[in-house]
Amino acid sequence: MVNGIERPLDVLNNAKGKEVLVQLKNNRQMVGTLLAFDIHINIVLDNAKEIIDSEDRRNVGLTFLRGDTIIFISPASIAKE
Amino acid sequence: MVNGIERPLDVLNNAKGKEVLVQLKNNRQMVGTLLAFDIHINIVLDNAKEIIDSEDRRNVGLTFLRGDTIIFISPASIAKE
Amino acid sequence: MVNGIERPLDVLNNAKGKEVLVQLKNNRQMVGTLLAFDIHINIVLDNAKEIIDSEDRRNVGLTFLRGDTIIFISPASIAKE
Amino acid sequence: MVNGIERPLDVLNNAKGKEVLVQLKNNRQMVGTLLAFDIHINIVLDNAKEIIDSEDRRNVGLTFLRGDTIIFISPASIAKE
Amino acid sequence: MVNGIERPLDVLNNAKGKEVLVQLKNNRQMVGTLLAFDIHINIVLDNAKEIIDSEDRRNVGLTFLRGDTIIFISPASIAKE
Amino acid sequence: MVNGIERPLDVLNNAKGKEVLVQLKNNRQMVGTLLAFDIHINIVLDNAKEIIDSEDRRNVGLTFLRGDTIIFISPASIAKE
Amino acid sequence: MVNGIERPLDVLNNAKGKEVLVQLKNNRQMVGTLLAFDIHINIVLDNAKEIIDSEDRRNVGLTFLRGDTIIFISPASIAKE
Repeated sequence: MVNGIERPLDVLNNAKGKEVLVQLKNNRQMVGTLLAFDIHINIVLDNAKEIIDSEDRRNVGLTFLRGDTIIFISPASIAKE
Repeated sequence: MVNGIERPLDVLNNAKGKEVLVQLKNNRQMVGTLLAFDIHINIVLDNAKEIIDSEDRRNVGLTFLRGDTIIFISPASIAKE
Repeated sequence: MVNGIERPLDVLNNAKGKEVLVQLKNNRQMVGTLLAFDIHINIVLDNAKEIIDSEDRRNVGLTFLRGDTIIFISPASIAKE
Repeated sequence: MVNGIERPLDVLNNAKGKEVLVQLKNNRQMVGTLLAFDIHINIVLDNAKEIIDSEDRRNVGLTFLRGDTIIFISPASIAKE
Repeated sequence: MVNGIERPLDVLNNAKGKEVLVQLKNNRQMVGTLLAFDIHINIVLDNAKEIIDSEDRRNVGLTFLRGDTIIFISPASIAKE
Repeated sequence: MVNGIERPLDVLNNAKGKEVLVQLKNNRQMVGTLLAFDIHINIVLDNAKEIIDSEDRRNVGLTFLRGDTIIFISPASIAKE
Repeated sequence: MVNGIERPLDVLNNAKGKEVLVQLKNNRQMVGTLLAFDIHINIVLDNAKEIIDSEDRRNVGLTFLRGDTIIFISPASIAKE
């Protein structure tokens, strides 16, 4: 899984088209399919679902997320929760 | 829906003239028609309605929103709430 | 009202000389006549009135506001409250 | 009072040598004579008096204030409080 | 252990491929194998485990962490806890 | 006292070698002799004494203070408290 | 002790190889031997010990600290506590 990761953004590049868990500040999370990102770590998720304090809150579909509210992005963690 | 999204800002470009849900920091949300945005994610909404803790609070009409208070912008999520 | 808005700052340019509602962080608001703004969204209001938790607090007259405390600026919302 | 204000910093330039009210984050205020400012909105007040939660706390005399803690600067508001 | 550390990032370079403890703001911690970092201190951990208030919460596997939420990164501290 | 202050940093330059009161965010203060400063308002105090909620807490001697935690620096205020 | 300090970073340069007290935001402190620093005030401590609310919490050994969480760094204060 680790092969080919030279720089942090390689992980996001490898995760395009896959489900990711995005941990936001203030106990918000989103899960969805990573479609795009930029160097500010602004990202786009498709079929995004917002989770607050471990509860499903709402489906927000296609969503643009600003990078500065993101703590971490984890492509592999969906299956492990 | 996903076609043609190479960079995060493509989602905002595709959403011009459509209703979007904007999640702000501190549990504020706005819904309105996206008229314009820039690279700082400053945006303009028309017919904007402010929602705090899931309650409608007030209509603020045409509104300029500073990018640094925005968590996410979701063009598709109006119908799904 | 929407005509001619290509970039977010066009809204502020159109609002010069008119009353605006300015929502600040921490539940502060100001209403006043927009006299000037810059790219940092620093603005000047004349006849500014400060409102905290929906109560009028004080008239502060001519006022310089730093952009980084601003959430939104709404030129049309005075009449709608 | 409004004449000659093209840019936000014009208000500060006009206020040099006059008393201003400076609203800081966290409910702190200062009043004093504006001596100098720069583009970061760092300012210098002379005969500055610190006010916390509307109470006079202390005279701090000549004071350098960092711009990023400032919400607004109001040259006209001293007389109106 | 100290040999060869001229600049702060040398510590992270030496820690590649090793377990690190990452202290995040808001009492979150992560432990995992450091795979990559950049000058913004964005990092990638493999086999990352999230710890909140000293309790194991979840395995998040391969994870991208944004630099601005990081307080410290400690390569040597795993064994010492 | 006001003579010769054209720019905000002139106040700090004039205060070198003198006692200053430094107000930090979160109700911390320091008093000490100003030895050096830079454009980020990073400063060095000698014989620094930390004060929290108006109580002396500890002598920290020679101290480097990062600019972004500073609210104000007041060279004249020691005698007035 | 004051000799040779022209700029704030001179204090950190003089403190290399010596014990320093690092005050972080949110009532965290660290003590340790300063090995390296950069212009962002990212630092490396060896034999670092974390202290929260004046209590020893844990030894974290060699540690990279991000500059933006640092309030002050005090080379002389270890002996004085």
